[in-house]
Amino acid sequence: MIVVMNLDAGEENVEAVKERLHQMGYKTHPIYGTARIVIGAIGLEKSATPPTGLETMPGVEKVMRIMAPYKMVSREVKNEDSVIEVGGVRIGGNQLTVMAGPCAVESYDQIYKIAKGVSQSGAQVLRGGAFKPRSSPYSFQGLEEEGLKFMAEVRDELGMITVTETITPADVELVASYADIIQVGARNMQNYALLKEVGKCGKPVLLKRGFASTIEEWLMAAEYIVNEGNLQVILCERGIRTFETYTRNTLDISAIPLVKILSHLPVIVDPSHSAGDWRLVSPLANASVAAGADGALVEVHHTPNEALCDGAQSLTLENFDNMMQELNQIAKAVNRSMATSDNKCVEGKEKV
Amino acid sequence: MIVVMNLDAGEENVEAVKERLHQMGYKTHPIYGTARIVIGAIGLEKSATPPTGLETMPGVEKVMRIMAPYKMVSREVKNEDSVIEVGGVRIGGNQLTVMAGPCAVESYDQIYKIAKGVSQSGAQVLRGGAFKPRSSPYSFQGLEEEGLKFMAEVRDELGMITVTETITPADVELVASYADIIQVGARNMQNYALLKEVGKCGKPVLLKRGFASTIEEWLMAAEYIVNEGNLQVILCERGIRTFETYTRNTLDISAIPLVKILSHLPVIVDPSHSAGDWRLVSPLANASVAAGADGALVEVHHTPNEALCDGAQSLTLENFDNMMQELNQIAKAVNRSMATSDNKCVEGKEKV
Amino acid sequence: MIVVMNLDAGEENVEAVKERLHQMGYKTHPIYGTARIVIGAIGLEKSATPPTGLETMPGVEKVMRIMAPYKMVSREVKNEDSVIEVGGVRIGGNQLTVMAGPCAVESYDQIYKIAKGVSQSGAQVLRGGAFKPRSSPYSFQGLEEEGLKFMAEVRDELGMITVTETITPADVELVASYADIIQVGARNMQNYALLKEVGKCGKPVLLKRGFASTIEEWLMAAEYIVNEGNLQVILCERGIRTFETYTRNTLDISAIPLVKILSHLPVIVDPSHSAGDWRLVSPLANASVAAGADGALVEVHHTPNEALCDGAQSLTLENFDNMMQELNQIAKAVNRSMATSDNKCVEGKEKV
Amino acid sequence: MIVVMNLDAGEENVEAVKERLHQMGYKTHPIYGTARIVIGAIGLEKSATPPTGLETMPGVEKVMRIMAPYKMVSREVKNEDSVIEVGGVRIGGNQLTVMAGPCAVESYDQIYKIAKGVSQSGAQVLRGGAFKPRSSPYSFQGLEEEGLKFMAEVRDELGMITVTETITPADVELVASYADIIQVGARNMQNYALLKEVGKCGKPVLLKRGFASTIEEWLMAAEYIVNEGNLQVILCERGIRTFETYTRNTLDISAIPLVKILSHLPVIVDPSHSAGDWRLVSPLANASVAAGADGALVEVHHTPNEALCDGAQSLTLENFDNMMQELNQIAKAVNRSMATSDNKCVEGKEKV
Repeated sequence: MIVVMNLDAGEENVEAVKERLHQMGYKTHPIYGTARIVIGAIGLEKSATPPTGLETMPGVEKVMRIMAPYKMVSREVKNEDSVIEVGGVRIGGNQLTVMAGPCAVESYDQIYKIAKGVSQSGAQVLRGGAFKPRSSPYSFQGLEEEGLKFMAEVRDELGMITVTETITPADVELVASYADIIQVGARNMQNYALLKEVGKCGKPVLLKRGFASTIEEWLMAAEYIVNEGNLQVILCERGIRTFETYTRNTLDISAIPLVKILSHLPVIVDPSHSAGDWRLVSPLANASVAAGADGALVEVHHTPNEALCDGAQSLTLENFDNMMQELNQIAKAVNRSMATSDNKCVEGKEKV
Repeated sequence: MIVVMNLDAGEENVEAVKERLHQMGYKTHPIYGTARIVIGAIGLEKSATPPTGLETMPGVEKVMRIMAPYKMVSREVKNEDSVIEVGGVRIGGNQLTVMAGPCAVESYDQIYKIAKGVSQSGAQVLRGGAFKPRSSPYSFQGLEEEGLKFMAEVRDELGMITVTETITPADVELVASYADIIQVGARNMQNYALLKEVGKCGKPVLLKRGFASTIEEWLMAAEYIVNEGNLQVILCERGIRTFETYTRNTLDISAIPLVKILSHLPVIVDPSHSAGDWRLVSPLANASVAAGADGALVEVHHTPNEALCDGAQSLTLENFDNMMQELNQIAKAVNRSMATSDNKCVEGKEKV
Repeated sequence: MIVVMNLDAGEENVEAVKERLHQMGYKTHPIYGTARIVIGAIGLEKSATPPTGLETMPGVEKVMRIMAPYKMVSREVKNEDSVIEVGGVRIGGNQLTVMAGPCAVESYDQIYKIAKGVSQSGAQVLRGGAFKPRSSPYSFQGLEEEGLKFMAEVRDELGMITVTETITPADVELVASYADIIQVGARNMQNYALLKEVGKCGKPVLLKRGFASTIEEWLMAAEYIVNEGNLQVILCERGIRTFETYTRNTLDISAIPLVKILSHLPVIVDPSHSAGDWRLVSPLANASVAAGADGALVEVHHTPNEALCDGAQSLTLENFDNMMQELNQIAKAVNRSMATSDNKCVEGKEKV
Repeated sequence: MIVVMNLDAGEENVEAVKERLHQMGYKTHPIYGTARIVIGAIGLEKSATPPTGLETMPGVEKVMRIMAPYKMVSREVKNEDSVIEVGGVRIGGNQLTVMAGPCAVESYDQIYKIAKGVSQSGAQVLRGGAFKPRSSPYSFQGLEEEGLKFMAEVRDELGMITVTETITPADVELVASYADIIQVGARNMQNYALLKEVGKCGKPVLLKRGFASTIEEWLMAAEYIVNEGNLQVILCERGIRTFETYTRNTLDISAIPLVKILSHLPVIVDPSHSAGDWRLVSPLANASVAAGADGALVEVHHTPNEALCDGAQSLTLENFDNMMQELNQIAKAVNRSMATSDNKCVEGKEKV
């Protein structure tokens, strides 16, 4: 931590700051510059953020943090890439993982049809919402436990694994009893009670970046989960809120290579929510893999114009299949591979 | 709802869209312009947002919503200002309400000292955090129930009322058993499970705007609470996230007069969190009242440089007293009044 | 400047950075912390920004600047408030300055009618655009020199002073020959060729903040003008671009008290462009003065729904008069005064 | 254009709006919905933006535009992709174009060394700044005409073409006399005097997106240039300003496929300025081409830590060569090709 004194800070101000820092357990190291004094504070910085309030002391201009506040998710603690294994699927290794399915589970038939289609095109993970966080209380809120059951049944029939969102701590156990990967949505990225609960659930967690969260806050949210003992965190970039209105959110593609530098956790991308426009999904999925993402989470619906939510951004099964073929080429270009459809879903295919 | 067809949409595309709209229960009303066709869809728009997925139909360029998605919180439903009464304090009427206290309750002595000070300067409501949503798992997380108890004791001694945050649905009942007003923090503005729960708790709710939430989303969050039968919602603007880094957030002062046009709910302002800098708190409180706010929520600490959280933005008791005197002048200038210290806290004063 | 080395930087990396810093003329001062090494670089920092490229050296994690890049506009160089005098009007002193008029000069009659009205309500400065930066090449681009002439004639008749925008260096001399204050618009805040030219023109400059410019960039733009020898710079906050779409821009009210701390230059506010909605203009003007602004720049039109540009945000003459009365009350509340209409425009009033 | 009346608008308000619309030359088409009246206004919409001021009429709630304000740059006017040919290089066709070079021309030797290196790695266009828009008046402002000369000499020796920025209308002719492509920088995207001037210069224009400009404003800026008769516009996405501070700007990767849908103009990407970090340049270039970009504009310096500007984001020649090899793979994956180094620069290679 660096404390910058202002131009007319006196020696007594410097001494007071030093004394306060010593009380906090820091060693101090003042540097007398040509114009002003800065005080280096050396210590363990156990607490992620420097103690606040120094800014209110006389003579202090600003306090600058030196170290990143995240630890366990950082490359400094673990240098090699984390790979998360679940139900035979490896997320974060050389092979890319595609998770696909509808915004919301609407019925058994709907989820079955879509799951079968995306599985045949190479998706290994079935996504679908049973508890939906909707901005309007009057919108469809999801089938809840019934939706979870439908997904689990379809998974078992088709040999996929599933990911679904939980929106409140009280439901984590229920959701974890049906699903393979628990999703924490963008709106809940700083719902710390929820983060702690999924940190204890024993299942891998897909942590979406909040649409207005910095990369640092995102990694801190992952740190919350890891701090509860759950190391199986998959980061998911899904677009941030900007001034641009032609797209729903702005996919922060730079976040992918940057998080790969800062953290050992796998990172996938949700091109559907970021754009809010099905026409952009495939180019954005391509871009993400080209930038180093470990996979994609994509909304697919067999009849988007009849979807109960987010139809505008859903791919048809045919468009999804085209997307997968393009993605396969990009994967090769960056020396990665797509999961072959052989090792998954064989039974599923035969059953229908 | 208006469906805009693209330039080369054919009559068969128009017919398909009309048919889909009729299925949804809309009457349709096409307008043939010089360059393209737009289809007006007339209906009850019970569901707050137009059905999605029309955008994926052939020939459709975009879908534009006509009506605001919020209803019950809107001036169109209730034209006169809502005034919320709690423990003898009226929020939203001609008199301004100031809520003040520390970021976090740290001890009985701390909260008592601060409460007594802010009460003497004219604050009617004591704020303080017992459950703290912190971006780092390593930061102080609050005294939890003990903190609630301390606040309740101080309230009873000093004759104030209290506001404190709840961060998870499971704690709402506990928090409501101690506090007079339940706060939903900025990070939880779209925690819909929490909104539903505070909607059932029977106590007034202070709903902070999410730091990346639009005014529309903020009003929709209020709609969630009102939809559960709780009409006692106090909106609180606390700054939004922008590119500017010299301040922590950008106080959206325009939101105050705008929300006053759109909604009947009272609106207060949190100048402490928005700026993150104690030097800006008083000017921003002044600005807010000048723009039409019904009060302010201010962080105060007797020794900010020793505060366990957010010291940099906390006013000392002396600075708070100065702020109140300035605010009193602004209140008069806009034909409003501050609560006199007579009618509150008299006992408290005598006790010390 | 502080250079933070990364965790596994070796001594040879530290030496290389020190050597590079010495070449640049810095003295170096390494601090060996518990986890990593930081190198304090002490020097004159004549160049406003630290030399770049250190970040690419092996072992360097990041480079942090200690000092603000602006000098001449800073309180550190001149502590007392700058007051700019032009044609008997003082901008930046205790008295508030209101500048009012139409978005664009449309005709002599139009500008005369509006000028007379706003002058009678207490505006001392007439605003109006002759060269209009329009986002569409098909929109009205202004009357150009004819517009300048109309404004100058009206000014002479009514005893006001004028402010108008110049959008290209080549026109600065022409504009300066007609107008009393030269405006640099938000879109041109980083048009450095223009800043240099107005820095040489000898007239006061009203410098609008770019809608996506940080406070630091805004002060650096002022520094460009001052660096050419023109100390008469009036800063004008006019809203920044954010994700909120209910208002055109978000007025950054916090910027006012903050700039007052950082700089000695006067600061006024444009509530018309920031909101884009006439209903918000008066509350925002009130808020700005309550937060410490030295005045306001307001769009007024006698028939807004017939205005050639920006009618939606223009006040009628009657609404402007109401705004001025409210503003007068706020001014008193913060111990400031409005210009009395006596000392200006007396002749103007008699003439009509 | 759609005019939405508010809930309690009376028939006389509707009539007044209709009359005003008729005066403007529109036909009107009211739709009586269940809750409110909307008025469709049908007309040529020659003027890009609807006449403003209707919003101030009694009973009007809002005015919604139907048609995009850009025309000539739109796919609706010209469906096939525009390809710009300059000095044997085709920009916008199947082959990707890479433009590379230093931020600023510093000396003949510097630009020669870098040009030779990037050319050998496959860059066809040499970039370099002679007039630099710097946020500080104390920073290096470029070699000006001398820099232009150095670039032209190097171009002639190595058989490349050049792109360089012009920052003020008065210099356009000078710059155009030396350079092959004229760059309009992000800060000048709404410098309309400059846009008009480059629209008349007869050379292709590389138009960077303003860092806070919407896609619509960017296309409108292109429309300004095209409106002067210059159809040779190359769009360049270079990142937008967001709340994220770990990167300098946020590359808006979604803008690429979206602009390809909306416009026929070629689009390239500047991954160097968007990230501000050399480590992200190659992944972002890959992502851009995967998303459909027609090329990239990349900063390269032979000794980045000694660069006079923007060293932190510059690739070394070796890193650039690696980038080109990766990009080549991505190009193949999306069925495009890189320029072979054969058809360009052969002489250059032999000369050294």
